Parts: sequence; structure tokens; C-alpha cells
Amino acid sequence: MTTTNPNFTDAEYYARIAKTRAEMDRRGLDLLIITDPSNMAWISGYDGWSFYVHQAVLLPMSGEPVWWGRAMDGAGAARTVFMRDDASIVGYDDSYVQNPQKHPMEALASLIIDRGWNTGWIGVEMDNYYYSARAHDVLTNHLHEANLNDSTGLVNWQRAVKSDSEIEYIRRAGSIVQRMHEVIVERAEPGMAKNELVAEIFHAGIMGAEGHWGDYPAIVPMAPSGMDATAPHLTWDDRPLRRGESNFFELAGAHRRYHCPQSRTLFFGPPPDIYRRAENAVLEAMEAGLAQARPGNRCEDVANAFNATLNKLGFEKDSRCGYSIGLSYPPDWGERTMSFRRGDMTEIKAGMTLHFMPALWLEDGGLEITETILITDAGAQPFCTTPRGIFVKD
Amino acid sequence: MTTTNPNFTDAEYYARIAKTRAEMDRRGLDLLIITDPSNMAWISGYDGWSFYVHQAVLLPMSGEPVWWGRAMDGAGAARTVFMRDDASIVGYDDSYVQNPQKHPMEALASLIIDRGWNTGWIGVEMDNYYYSARAHDVLTNHLHEANLNDSTGLVNWQRAVKSDSEIEYIRRAGSIVQRMHEVIVERAEPGMAKNELVAEIFHAGIMGAEGHWGDYPAIVPMAPSGMDATAPHLTWDDRPLRRGESNFFELAGAHRRYHCPQSRTLFFGPPPDIYRRAENAVLEAMEAGLAQARPGNRCEDVANAFNATLNKLGFEKDSRCGYSIGLSYPPDWGERTMSFRRGDMTEIKAGMTLHFMPALWLEDGGLEITETILITDAGAQPFCTTPRGIFVKD
Repeated sequence: MTTTNPNFTDAEYYARIAKTRAEMDRRGLDLLIITDPSNMAWISGYDGWSFYVHQAVLLPMSGEPVWWGRAMDGAGAARTVFMRDDASIVGYDDSYVQNPQKHPMEALASLIIDRGWNTGWIGVEMDNYYYSARAHDVLTNHLHEANLNDSTGLVNWQRAVKSDSEIEYIRRAGSIVQRMHEVIVERAEPGMAKNELVAEIFHAGIMGAEGHWGDYPAIVPMAPSGMDATAPHLTWDDRPLRRGESNFFELAGAHRRYHCPQSRTLFFGPPPDIYRRAENAVLEAMEAGLAQARPGNRCEDVANAFNATLNKLGFEKDSRCGYSIGLSYPPDWGERTMSFRRGDMTEIKAGMTLHFMPALWLEDGGLEITETILITDAGAQPFCTTPRGIFVKD
Repeated sequence: MTTTNPNFTDAEYYARIAKTRAEMDRRGLDLLIITDPSNMAWISGYDGWSFYVHQAVLLPMSGEPVWWGRAMDGAGAARTVFMRDDASIVGYDDSYVQNPQKHPMEALASLIIDRGWNTGWIGVEMDNYYYSARAHDVLTNHLHEANLNDSTGLVNWQRAVKSDSEIEYIRRAGSIVQRMHEVIVERAEPGMAKNELVAEIFHAGIMGAEGHWGDYPAIVPMAPSGMDATAPHLTWDDRPLRRGESNFFELAGAHRRYHCPQSRTLFFGPPPDIYRRAENAVLEAMEAGLAQARPGNRCEDVANAFNATLNKLGFEKDSRCGYSIGLSYPPDWGERTMSFRRGDMTEIKAGMTLHFMPALWLEDGGLEITETILITDAGAQPFCTTPRGIFVKD
């Protein structure tokens, strides 16, 4: 096997494994079945668009992790994982793929039994896109000597504080998303079909910036205009950009699967007064929130400071205003751990990276001005220097 | 509520619902909880990148379907679903989102109880990316008067035979993917960084073709070269294109969420003899397979004809050589129903659309020459006229 172009040193993977095993030990787990593709990549280096079939990385309490997946993807595993032992990559027969007659988890259960890992406590990621209800059923039925334990988020939480290499990749992703927003300002014109602008955004994102190539973001550009921008998650079609309506662009740059999301809002000509007032409120509330985003505080402190200022200035936001980001695969660039919202008591630590996301959806459009930040001992540091405010083009 | 820019007539949605209810009736179901985003879109028209949080369309045996999801996505639902009744869109509070303390399925269970749908047989899509093991657990615990029944694929199978409008969208997607391959031949040069070529591919895909805009494909371009092309599902980085190695491009054009996948392989200068022999074998075997892809035959007839010819010519393929395609969302552009493989006894019918996918992964690279086909009474019709064979550029 040859690992080409590795994203991290072996030492970094072993440090991640040690950290994860410490938590497994604390919970009394003997084996962890990792099915979240981001967690699989973080532990093993595996990188391929194969998560539409069942696959996993198995992490026992000693020895190397095992990549398990569709046989044809074993070749991609051999090209990307840090493990060099042949026994660390196990493929299942293609007849298991999307075949109502059999299920890949039958093959995984056999592998677990073969390795003698079938009698203890086994952690599974119960609330993950890539661990279906049926997968759990089949595994439970075939591993009756084991106790399956919900370990959703166990690995995700180990990822919260980033290493220097990870921060460097997010920094590169930051220069890419900054370039994507520059391209919007350069290219957007009234009358331009939205998909033409999105084509330019994609092009800029994959070309990369400052000598660093662009990877695919875990979410495509969200780029609604006017009434469609009252909704947060619509994508695009070919209707033209128009004067007199808001256009928001929620994007991420990506490099080696690490993300830096950032959103901005564009108007042709002067924005209506309500948008200017909302902009002022959001920017002031954002400063109040960012001031709380420092080591020792809680995630809810950021949300409470943000919301207090926002409300004082006459606006309301009833959804969270941020979440942890980093390594990711579709459908989500978030890490699904901490959020900036009331009640989230997670302690903020240096090295955490979050998307501060104070979007407002107004009656006739949306306003999104967001920043991805690094927590440092000196407080929150944005990854980008994109001008913070509504983009206005004449 | 206003449905803007609808993809289909109300009549088409009602026909789909009638077809689905007939199957629900056959299985004795009172309610179907649809969580596959493709199925949600097919039944209701809903289109948004919100499937990273729990959401569903509820289909009872009478009345309109109900879209259920995160409150903030209700606005996107109101912009895209065909239903016009306010009670057809129900949102849950943002505090349920990715919060280990509570689960959105608690809110769904309450809704089902409120509507009086909690006592009969309820179908759930047990083996779907967007119905997690935890989701099923929570729903089971909160709906103890109901019988939850595995209905994976129930809606997917109703989608197998396409309407004229759906076929038209796939045709448009076909002209887009054809343009994407033209761009590869136009732009690819030895020494070009792979991500630069992928940026051009994305740009062409979103720009669209023949006046039809490009939507995002459910899978990003897979574009490996050389040894990386021995693996089917690697994406890209910035290493340069080189003479003397194979480059394959597995792509889809997309229009209004409908896909037309197509793959081709590119060499700079004459391909090695083994690739020419593999090309001849694949093309001849493909003709043999396509000849069997006609109404009344079984899916396995296509695979058996393909494999018999391929083996006779000295090559082997141990994975399926095709699958059903159409409307889709990440992570898969397949419909996850029928496959061209031994043992798949699905009867082929006019109006079905499949990706005939006879890829070979050789010792030092890959060969992919594939076609998306429409089944007609006269046999298989490819959607594209892209030249069928290895692309050679000097």
C-alpha cells in the first residue's frame, strides 16, 4: 500500500487515536464503529466519495484501526489511509450493495466476530446520516454477545480543538472563501442569470487561492434572492439577479476537506432602510458576541451577548447563532457538537473553530453577514478579512 | 403560500401520490414517513439543502401530504411544495437542532399524535441516509400505539418509470453532461493542475447547455488519474495531469435535481495496448448488454450478456454494471432500486432510466466509458451522443 499525498503525519493520527481511546476507556468501550465520514477521515485519513454505501472505520482499544467498506473502495482506502498493514483494509462483496436481499452490516458483523471483538461494549454513532436504522438493526441481530452503545459525537468532540495543521488548512479555506466573495462582487450584475454567477463561485472555489487548491465544500452555495432569501436553504435556478432585492451567499471555501464558511449579502443600489438597520444591529450584536467568544466562557455566553444586543436594537433571532466547523463531508459542514445558543454550557477553549452565524431572515429577504473564527488566548480571531457589511454594487 | 417556479404540475404530484397510496394500501400502511430527500421532493416538490437536519414528508391515506422540518426551513417549503394549505407545513423549534438533550423525532411524534395518525401501521425508510438509528429509536419509543414497518424503497420504486416531464429534465441534464465532457477535451493539457480542470467542469455543469441551467449533481466529479484511477471514488487535488496515465471523469449533468451521469477516460497520446484491448472489450460487451436492455427482459439479462461478452474477450468485472437514476440529492445519484447484476429479476419497462456503468479498474489505472439510457419499446436509447471510446489528446 502507498499513502500518497497524506494530509497529516502518522504522529498526528496516533495522537488522535490516543485521545479517542482515552474517551472510549472512560466510557468502558471495547470497540468503536465509526461511520461518520468526517470521523473516519479524522481517525484514518480515508478520503473518497463512497459514503453512499455502508462503510466504517473500526477502532479497537489496541492495534491499528481497520477500514471496512465496499471491496472496490479498498483501492481508494489503500491510497489515502495512514495504516500500512494489509489487515487494516477489509472489503465486502459488491453483491451487498443496495441489494434488498442482503445487508452490508452482515459482513461487518462477521468481520467483528472474526477479530474476536464481538463480546464487549461496542460504540456506534446512532444519530449519524451514515448509520441507518436498518444498519443498527442488522448489527444488533448479528452481534448478540455484544452491548451496542450510543456513541454519537464521541469522535466529533475529540475534534473540537484543532491542531496547528488543521488550523493552517482552515486558514487556506478562508483565503478561498474570501476570493469567492470577491468574485461575486466583481461579476454580479442585474440581469445576470443566478446559475451563471454560481458557476463563477464554484469555479473560484475549486481554483483555490494563494497557491492552495480548492476542495468541494460539504454544502453547495446557498444563493437565494428576494422572497427566496426569506428561506435559509434554497439553492439556485436561472432567474436573473434584480435591483431592489437582497441576495445572500452562504458559502464555504474548502481545502483538504477543511472548511471555512462565510456569508455576505449583496444589493444593487442602496439597500432599503430596514436592511441598513438590520445590518447595524447584526454588526453591533456580532461584536458583543465575539467579545464573549474567549477561553473559559461558555457557548451560551456568546449567544446571550449577541441576542441581548440584537434585541435592544429591535431585532430577534430565534435560532442558534453559530456552531463548530472543520473537517467535513456532505451534507453538513458543521461538526454537530457545540452551538452558540442559550443552554449550551460547553466551555470555550483556545484552538476551537466556529462559524459565527448571525443570519436574519426578514419579511422580504435575508441578511447574512457571518464569520468563521479561531478561538485564541487573546479572544476570537476571524479567518477572513472580507469587509464586514452589506455589499452594495451600483 | 406561493409556489414559485414549480417543476411539475399539481396533477403530476397527485398522480404520484395515488401511485404511492396504492402500494401503501397493498402493504396495509396507514401513514408513510418519507425521509429520503429525493422521495420528499418527488411527492411534494420540496427542494432545499436542509437534509442535514431531521425532516420528513408525511403521507396519510387521504388528504394532502404534510411537510415537517426545522422551523426556519418552513419558508423554503412554502416556496417549493405544491401544497397550499397552511396545515401542510409544520416546523419544529430550533432548540431541537443537533442538540444532544432533545431529538427532533420527539416533535414529529407529537405531530403524528396531534393528527390522530399514531395508532395504525406506519411505514419508515429504515435504510436511508436521513433516517438514523437514533431517529427510529426515538420514534418507536414515542409512538407505542403504532406499528412501525420498514418501507425502505417503497417510494423509490414508484419513481422507476419516468413521466414525459421527468424524461425531458434528464434529457436536458444529458446535454449538460455532454458539454462537460467536451470542456474536458477542450481544456485538459499535460501539466494542468487537476483542480483547475475540475473548476472548468463545475463551471460548465452549472452554466448548463442548450438554454437549460445546471443544478448541482448529487455527487461531485470523480476525476482520478494514474494509480488513483485504480480506485473508483477519489476526487481531486492539485497534482498535474500527465502523459502516460489514464484519467477518468465520472460526472453527471443535473437539471431541476434530475441527473444524467456519464463517464469517459482521457489519455494524452496513444493509450497503452491493454487499455485499447479493454476499450474494445467494454464497447463490445456494452453493445451486448444494451441489446438486452428492453421491455420484458430482466435486469440480470443485461448483466449476464455484458459479462459473458466481457469474459470472452479476456476481462472480468465483479461489480454491478448499472443502476436506476433520476431525481436525486447527495450523497447518491442512483435511485437505490434495481441494478444490472446477476440475480436482479426486476422486469425492465419502457420509461425506466438507468446508468449503464461498465467501468473497469485495471492494475495501473481505470477505464470508464458509460452511458445513461432510456428504455423504450424499441430498446435502450442513450441520452447523449458523446463519442463512445477513450478520448485521446496529443
